[in-house]
Amino acid sequence: MDILLQRNAKGRLFVISGPSGVGKDTLIDRLIAQTDGIMRSVSATTRSPRANEVNGRDYHFVTHAAFARDIASNLFLEYEKYGENYYGTPVGPVKDNLQQGTDVILKIEVKGALNVRRQMPDARLIFIAPPSLDELERRLRFRDTDSADAVTTRMEIAQAELKQAMHYDYMVVNDVLDEALAQLRCIITAERVRVT
Amino acid sequence: MDILLQRNAKGRLFVISGPSGVGKDTLIDRLIAQTDGIMRSVSATTRSPRANEVNGRDYHFVTHAAFARDIASNLFLEYEKYGENYYGTPVGPVKDNLQQGTDVILKIEVKGALNVRRQMPDARLIFIAPPSLDELERRLRFRDTDSADAVTTRMEIAQAELKQAMHYDYMVVNDVLDEALAQLRCIITAERVRVT
Repeated sequence: MDILLQRNAKGRLFVISGPSGVGKDTLIDRLIAQTDGIMRSVSATTRSPRANEVNGRDYHFVTHAAFARDIASNLFLEYEKYGENYYGTPVGPVKDNLQQGTDVILKIEVKGALNVRRQMPDARLIFIAPPSLDELERRLRFRDTDSADAVTTRMEIAQAELKQAMHYDYMVVNDVLDEALAQLRCIITAERVRVT
Repeated sequence: MDILLQRNAKGRLFVISGPSGVGKDTLIDRLIAQTDGIMRSVSATTRSPRANEVNGRDYHFVTHAAFARDIASNLFLEYEKYGENYYGTPVGPVKDNLQQGTDVILKIEVKGALNVRRQMPDARLIFIAPPSLDELERRLRFRDTDSADAVTTRMEIAQAELKQAMHYDYMVVNDVLDEALAQLRCIITAERVRVT
């Protein structure tokens, strides 16, 4: 019954977006810890590492010159400039993992996510939403890594991003973490038994 | 944030097919027992009830005349004739439940399933497959409700149906029951957080 054996030969690409403070990293870390056959793509960036960030784990920290060379060599699946810095997804590791049958998770902004889907129409886009804008603001203030001005800016971006959620395949509301995680795991499981 | 509140207003229609003996009824019964907000559509048929079957639970057992009247009145979402008997899905309860936000499961043959999708393109089609044809044959013989000839016929139908699985949205292989059930539940969960 070849139809049964062949269908899972290639990996799937999952793209996760959502406003700052909604809990994307916690969800992705737990998802990967609990799930076989899935890995997270590490982005490249020209910004400086923060205190707790490790090169090659959190980001590939590169110079502007190196980033520009990689753009010219077409080595990014997508890249964007935010403020003074570039952020991009190196295409090589993503394609290699998918080819070997490993699922790949990208965490990227809405604009980058929609760009990825244009290039890889099989990508599944998952939006992580807060239960409400008030709750998102509360979490951002509680996190206390941003100034009050930065929180205001992040809230404006969040409202713009939420309007884009309709272009995603799935929307998970991160109200209770374990429930959101269970939904996220189910999306992966369901997509693995999807007929392509 | 209206986008979050409105998205689950209507129920979803799940259509489940798969060869005789693959375990569809067991899976559906357990799925419904473990899941809120989902019910099973009861088909109408002109065939006689078997010993353990209850009218209104397993099927609506009706006369040929009543079935013909309902066809004429356009009261079936789909219907088919198998052998001397008719089987059909009454459209009223399906639409009422979906309208009220309850998910509905239909268990129907491949031909009927593809007909349903033509009428309700949002329907999600799930194919339950055996781990192998040999294993399916073993289960049919073990079940011992069919003669050897009937098993041969069912196996021929199964091979034809498996070729149609590519037209379904999902394929769940029922090898270990609990794993197949978990996959089925995840499909329901994932579809509930799908952006429509």
